[in-house]
Amino acid sequence: MDALKSPRFAQPITFARLPLVRDLKGNGVLGAFVGVPFDGGATFYTGARLGPQFIRAESRLLRPYNMDLDVYPFIALRAVDYGDVDVIPTSVVRTLDRIEETIGSVIDQGATPFIAGGDHSITLGVLRAVGRRFKPLVLHFDSHFDYWDEYWGEKYTHGTWVRRAIEEGLIRGVIQVGIRGPQYDKSDLEYPRNSPVPIRVITMSEVDAKGINWLINELRNSLSGSVYVSFDIDSVDPAYAPGTGTREPGGFTSREALLIIRSLANINFELVGFDVVEVSPPLDTANITSLLAANITYQAMSIKARQVNKIAKG
Amino acid sequence: MDALKSPRFAQPITFARLPLVRDLKGNGVLGAFVGVPFDGGATFYTGARLGPQFIRAESRLLRPYNMDLDVYPFIALRAVDYGDVDVIPTSVVRTLDRIEETIGSVIDQGATPFIAGGDHSITLGVLRAVGRRFKPLVLHFDSHFDYWDEYWGEKYTHGTWVRRAIEEGLIRGVIQVGIRGPQYDKSDLEYPRNSPVPIRVITMSEVDAKGINWLINELRNSLSGSVYVSFDIDSVDPAYAPGTGTREPGGFTSREALLIIRSLANINFELVGFDVVEVSPPLDTANITSLLAANITYQAMSIKARQVNKIAKG
Amino acid sequence: MDALKSPRFAQPITFARLPLVRDLKGNGVLGAFVGVPFDGGATFYTGARLGPQFIRAESRLLRPYNMDLDVYPFIALRAVDYGDVDVIPTSVVRTLDRIEETIGSVIDQGATPFIAGGDHSITLGVLRAVGRRFKPLVLHFDSHFDYWDEYWGEKYTHGTWVRRAIEEGLIRGVIQVGIRGPQYDKSDLEYPRNSPVPIRVITMSEVDAKGINWLINELRNSLSGSVYVSFDIDSVDPAYAPGTGTREPGGFTSREALLIIRSLANINFELVGFDVVEVSPPLDTANITSLLAANITYQAMSIKARQVNKIAKG
Amino acid sequence: MDALKSPRFAQPITFARLPLVRDLKGNGVLGAFVGVPFDGGATFYTGARLGPQFIRAESRLLRPYNMDLDVYPFIALRAVDYGDVDVIPTSVVRTLDRIEETIGSVIDQGATPFIAGGDHSITLGVLRAVGRRFKPLVLHFDSHFDYWDEYWGEKYTHGTWVRRAIEEGLIRGVIQVGIRGPQYDKSDLEYPRNSPVPIRVITMSEVDAKGINWLINELRNSLSGSVYVSFDIDSVDPAYAPGTGTREPGGFTSREALLIIRSLANINFELVGFDVVEVSPPLDTANITSLLAANITYQAMSIKARQVNKIAKG
Amino acid sequence: MDALKSPRFAQPITFARLPLVRDLKGNGVLGAFVGVPFDGGATFYTGARLGPQFIRAESRLLRPYNMDLDVYPFIALRAVDYGDVDVIPTSVVRTLDRIEETIGSVIDQGATPFIAGGDHSITLGVLRAVGRRFKPLVLHFDSHFDYWDEYWGEKYTHGTWVRRAIEEGLIRGVIQVGIRGPQYDKSDLEYPRNSPVPIRVITMSEVDAKGINWLINELRNSLSGSVYVSFDIDSVDPAYAPGTGTREPGGFTSREALLIIRSLANINFELVGFDVVEVSPPLDTANITSLLAANITYQAMSIKARQVNKIAKG
Amino acid sequence: MDALKSPRFAQPITFARLPLVRDLKGNGVLGAFVGVPFDGGATFYTGARLGPQFIRAESRLLRPYNMDLDVYPFIALRAVDYGDVDVIPTSVVRTLDRIEETIGSVIDQGATPFIAGGDHSITLGVLRAVGRRFKPLVLHFDSHFDYWDEYWGEKYTHGTWVRRAIEEGLIRGVIQVGIRGPQYDKSDLEYPRNSPVPIRVITMSEVDAKGINWLINELRNSLSGSVYVSFDIDSVDPAYAPGTGTREPGGFTSREALLIIRSLANINFELVGFDVVEVSPPLDTANITSLLAANITYQAMSIKARQVNKIAKG
Repeated sequence: MDALKSPRFAQPITFARLPLVRDLKGNGVLGAFVGVPFDGGATFYTGARLGPQFIRAESRLLRPYNMDLDVYPFIALRAVDYGDVDVIPTSVVRTLDRIEETIGSVIDQGATPFIAGGDHSITLGVLRAVGRRFKPLVLHFDSHFDYWDEYWGEKYTHGTWVRRAIEEGLIRGVIQVGIRGPQYDKSDLEYPRNSPVPIRVITMSEVDAKGINWLINELRNSLSGSVYVSFDIDSVDPAYAPGTGTREPGGFTSREALLIIRSLANINFELVGFDVVEVSPPLDTANITSLLAANITYQAMSIKARQVNKIAKG
Repeated sequence: MDALKSPRFAQPITFARLPLVRDLKGNGVLGAFVGVPFDGGATFYTGARLGPQFIRAESRLLRPYNMDLDVYPFIALRAVDYGDVDVIPTSVVRTLDRIEETIGSVIDQGATPFIAGGDHSITLGVLRAVGRRFKPLVLHFDSHFDYWDEYWGEKYTHGTWVRRAIEEGLIRGVIQVGIRGPQYDKSDLEYPRNSPVPIRVITMSEVDAKGINWLINELRNSLSGSVYVSFDIDSVDPAYAPGTGTREPGGFTSREALLIIRSLANINFELVGFDVVEVSPPLDTANITSLLAANITYQAMSIKARQVNKIAKG
Repeated sequence: MDALKSPRFAQPITFARLPLVRDLKGNGVLGAFVGVPFDGGATFYTGARLGPQFIRAESRLLRPYNMDLDVYPFIALRAVDYGDVDVIPTSVVRTLDRIEETIGSVIDQGATPFIAGGDHSITLGVLRAVGRRFKPLVLHFDSHFDYWDEYWGEKYTHGTWVRRAIEEGLIRGVIQVGIRGPQYDKSDLEYPRNSPVPIRVITMSEVDAKGINWLINELRNSLSGSVYVSFDIDSVDPAYAPGTGTREPGGFTSREALLIIRSLANINFELVGFDVVEVSPPLDTANITSLLAANITYQAMSIKARQVNKIAKG
Repeated sequence: MDALKSPRFAQPITFARLPLVRDLKGNGVLGAFVGVPFDGGATFYTGARLGPQFIRAESRLLRPYNMDLDVYPFIALRAVDYGDVDVIPTSVVRTLDRIEETIGSVIDQGATPFIAGGDHSITLGVLRAVGRRFKPLVLHFDSHFDYWDEYWGEKYTHGTWVRRAIEEGLIRGVIQVGIRGPQYDKSDLEYPRNSPVPIRVITMSEVDAKGINWLINELRNSLSGSVYVSFDIDSVDPAYAPGTGTREPGGFTSREALLIIRSLANINFELVGFDVVEVSPPLDTANITSLLAANITYQAMSIKARQVNKIAKG
Repeated sequence: MDALKSPRFAQPITFARLPLVRDLKGNGVLGAFVGVPFDGGATFYTGARLGPQFIRAESRLLRPYNMDLDVYPFIALRAVDYGDVDVIPTSVVRTLDRIEETIGSVIDQGATPFIAGGDHSITLGVLRAVGRRFKPLVLHFDSHFDYWDEYWGEKYTHGTWVRRAIEEGLIRGVIQVGIRGPQYDKSDLEYPRNSPVPIRVITMSEVDAKGINWLINELRNSLSGSVYVSFDIDSVDPAYAPGTGTREPGGFTSREALLIIRSLANINFELVGFDVVEVSPPLDTANITSLLAANITYQAMSIKARQVNKIAKG
Repeated sequence: MDALKSPRFAQPITFARLPLVRDLKGNGVLGAFVGVPFDGGATFYTGARLGPQFIRAESRLLRPYNMDLDVYPFIALRAVDYGDVDVIPTSVVRTLDRIEETIGSVIDQGATPFIAGGDHSITLGVLRAVGRRFKPLVLHFDSHFDYWDEYWGEKYTHGTWVRRAIEEGLIRGVIQVGIRGPQYDKSDLEYPRNSPVPIRVITMSEVDAKGINWLINELRNSLSGSVYVSFDIDSVDPAYAPGTGTREPGGFTSREALLIIRSLANINFELVGFDVVEVSPPLDTANITSLLAANITYQAMSIKARQVNKIAKG
């Protein structure tokens, strides 16, 4: 929708004011925004079911041209808003099925999904859908490991999806970035050593000690092949992202977060899916968390757009 | 959209989750929700440009059946969300033209407009469109007269639309309900006496003294023919409608407001248009003002639906 | 805890600053406050899992003597704070078991439970516990019927507990007070006619038409034997109770709500349990919803205290 | 300041945009707004030190003509904003001295003080100043008695000023209106019986049972001679006045509060001072509490203006 | 006003508690704070009309001595609060005239204006006034270029003032600092190349890559002669400045912003005017945006004070 | 309390869900959390009396293992929540006595106090208690000096405690970190030169110029023997800590604050007490200030835990 015709604050809201389209194949869509408004997997504070709504609202300021990466992501991807997954608010298990089905359809139609959660439990459903075609490496931004085995006997929560994804054979490795804060037990740190697939943990302490450029370089040396990016907004500091359920002070700034994502543009891999999760608007202030999530999604779309353009140019 | 298929908090938002449709005639639409996101006519606090967005968000709880009036308003009116008028945020005068054009198109296609503002200056544009077909009596809920001649030399503001509408010959009378609060001068009360069309003023003091039932009876005796209802949300008390720019304590409760609108169902007139204005979401708390505005709109649609049904049966 | 020794804003928080006690029998406790911090059964907005925490915080202003009912509720009931049910946030079904178990223990120890939810799905668990000893009439304050059969195939939600409780044979009737707002379908109104137990529906329209005194009189004529009171805070108007997930404008005022509960003091029945539910603090403003819920609980405890005193004197 | 020259939201803020004037006598001022930004006497939540600032901000909508009472209060009283008392934030006792001195000067210059607190402890300082000339009857709106003897050994707090004023022989009686909520002990109700001056208590329960018109009539029969009005904003319900430190649900509506004050216009007494206290802006939502306080002050000024006009007309 | 006599939270509010003075010449004033409460030029969110009010409120903590720059800005400039420009809320064009007139008078009286907006459209009016005496270089902090030609056919908005100022021949160049975020089109970047006066663009990406010290050095090499500083608060990151209408994540921190302004102290140029714009208090949280704007203004006054002192010392 | 049994959002709240224990000696407690809910010493905004309540609420996410410092602080210190000091809200002087008494008892029982204020005046009471056994060096994080002699003739406020502590001979030196912002007068900087004990001032400007690592190194070279750490949360930037009464932009980030505290682990000194003060929840947004304060306290406890472990292993 053209902001020079209709002001950005006008009209019913879609992601970045893109058209709401369900037929991706027919429209040659290569990138689709999909909401997963679910918070039934949260173990602390809820509210993430409103994430897609508020991220859409804050995405209205996203304009077509990414000058840092010199790319028009929406044009390159013929991007659309696919709407939301019809979740089952009272059931994690059934919602995971719905996610797999919907995201599966997006992928089957040839589009890369750019997903806005929802709590982090939803990523398992997405990976099941992605897993039909790819066995990706997961680049996982988070302040928490999310590889616990269960909570109160529950296997499917926002803190257990990494382990489930590994157990289900969906992924070929994980790189965790931004880990920090108190842990339950020293033994929490041991799972990566015994994990069937490689898990690389990069803590904020390590980032503090070695710097952002070191981190970017590490990612450059680690990413290749199919990669799925899962961005838990609580990897960012509460000052920049107060609107999330399980906050840990001492995280990334918004500038660092955007820079890190942007820096993926120069690495040779295939982005097969992306999510930004744990945005909880009822806990947010001035919607800055949703605004940041919208911008991170924009950078992720730009990464994919450059990959697509590169292939097109051959 | 069916809430039993997709939860009410999911999917991009339209008014009451109705389809977003521009071709009214082709779809036999008799009632259309239209947003006018404009606050360039406000003389005190702004923010009403976000009214349509937030009223849509809060309208998601509106369900199809009005049990008090025994009517299905959306079905009876084949109601849709028409989207917003493409306002010019920096120009009242040009925006009035845009409103007239868009609302004119709605009316030309045979639908009654149910409008969410925006500040009260927008009503003049609507009345210009309505005025092509009708010369309605205006039932005007407000805490202010809105018939001043100008502010700082400006003729088109949210406090002057009543006088402009009269001067432009658009309406055949006004009934003002809910007037209260301090006035600039005693002479402010004199305009109705010299007005070219009848203006009936019912103050809150009068309502306090005589009761709501008296008020409803007065309306019953006063309304007939084509009627346009303009509902300034500041007619309601700030406890029920904090999100508005020019608040006056001592207004209607939400129960009274809904009851009064609902009671119009039994009066013999033709509703030719409706607006709810001055909802300013940045000033609101917990979105209760937008929620109330959505429900008042629902009652207004129900009134029209009953009129339509009556004619159909007639 | 004595406010004249330690200011009311000091010290870790329990309900009304009562002692946190698990051994009820040994302490002769007749009334226990219990929190059920669960919102996994909510179909619209979440946040009610924080209800008990915020109701406790706002209860610190409750003082020992109820001058309207001339009773010391805490002393009469030797009241305590029993803590919270250890819910399973991601499972309604398992949480209902936990509720039944915990509330069952409260009742087995001879105390009447005064419960703070949580969403309305929790009441089913409470009624299962109550149902071991009583088959109560349920006095149900709400803006919604809550007797739907399912949502998206889910049987246990905050909108289906009434039907489940009837199907499970736990209750001998329901009186619903405060019903209002749009409905899915006219047929929604038919369930009471075919229900195996009597359901009396009193809508807000009826209350508006006949008055609060009529309502109180109706309750006087309807209540006897064992009665369970379930108070959904959304029966109150959003101006008085903005902090709830599924709001309907046009509800009771706080004065009416307190008056109605207080008026139960003069009716001859046995209060076997009480809950106040659907308080969602993240949606609240200035915590007034939690404050009201605390005061309603206080009045309910006072009712029970008078019943206890009467028996003692009896 | 003329709103037709400078918009109401512009320019540094004084009460009702009146001039900031310290020389009252020279300007023939009969009524002065004075702020007392003090909350060092609060026993529960603080924040009332910001009351004057926010009441001034919300007073900008007050216009010159009171149409209900047919009077121009600012003109009749040649009203000004006198600024604030220079309180000592960390000392109640020294602040009371400062209040007495400043308000004493206002009175000595021939003006009636219209005071915005500040917590209720400040009223004692005002009464000491008023007491130099008058021994008034105090019309006291509140949800609390405020006649306790001490808190934690402290004699000067917002809950003890009534007793201190009586002990210091400053007043000839008290009428308390709006009392409600839980009490420490039944014996709390006994102080009026043994008080050296008459204390009349009118509870909200009594108002609920007998109606507002009865209350107004009671006041008509009780007020005469010199009267000081102290309006604790917590006499109003938290829905209308959330921004106060010690809230009790079940209070007056804004319409009732304004009506009661307005109805004093027809009673034959002399208003010797007025305060509105306990407005705590940090706890407020959308500043509606400050807005209401500004309007109540306006009505009080109008009462005085009519008394002044009446004398002038002789 | 002396904080040791009257607490900082007391008394009607002026900028930094300076006297409200209109006669600058007679008082030898060299620096005047002026508010421009206008948001009629905003293309996205409004609210900036409240900027001056809230910046004044937060400025109360500003104390006389700047220890980093070893200067007493208020004393050196004999600084005052000049009040606000009497804007015309519904007309950009007429407001620009009012601004030119008022600021022109400030300059004519020999004082440098320190302006608090208001949306960025106001800067054009200020530059017209400044332009009568100087043709300054504009040091422009912003996340946006603001040199578009029009919005919806409107020439005077907060996004077009740079182009208008150049077209009107008011300035001799622009240095833009902090530019970032998505753009409409690649061609947006081309205007500087064809501009009649030099435009230097420094993006946040460039700052990220080269560092703050590089930026400060660039400014040192670029500034000389008469310089006007326009500080759009959205150049700062939304975590530090959430209260603004068109936010872009990834901006300066408050420490960087203050450091950059402070570092101007050692550069040889003449500051002929300053504004901080786009502070929108209704969108702010905890007023931190207004607080930052007040402190930036303080640093700007300190820069001027040092220039004045230097001249005085000769 | 085990989060795997009871969700972290459930149950009445204590610090980090530790047991509420008054008998420290009998339980071998080495570290006790103590709240001091007092804001009667604040000279600007109040609200800090709610600090302990909100810090406790946000501390629920603190888990047992500190992976950065490889220590279990709660286990090592057998840590408990001691509850709050029973302050006298209306008297600084009497509250200081209460603090001395309560903290004295904690120390006498062999535990190190970890205190949550409250405004900064409380630190004097704590130092009086600490002073019975130690004459510590105070490591003081703050944006203000807090060594003024008086405010309005008042000796005991949150801005005078440093001078009082020196005068009372309680401490052997002060290191102030984070000082910034405007000062009353240049002479404010002179007190350290004439102080009877050494005062080292490290301003934010110095930190900006030399870097965080330099700061950490300075502390390493300065600390030894008994050290008391007083952390005024306003040393942190308002973006990270908006909820405090006297904010100064340009402070530490949360990452820096946590890093600095953490880095104390490798310095050879004895931590004899710790406080985090000036957290004012009514001014906070999304409780991020309380969350940060809880995490800083956790790091401080970890420092002590390592000192304790070292001695144990010793």
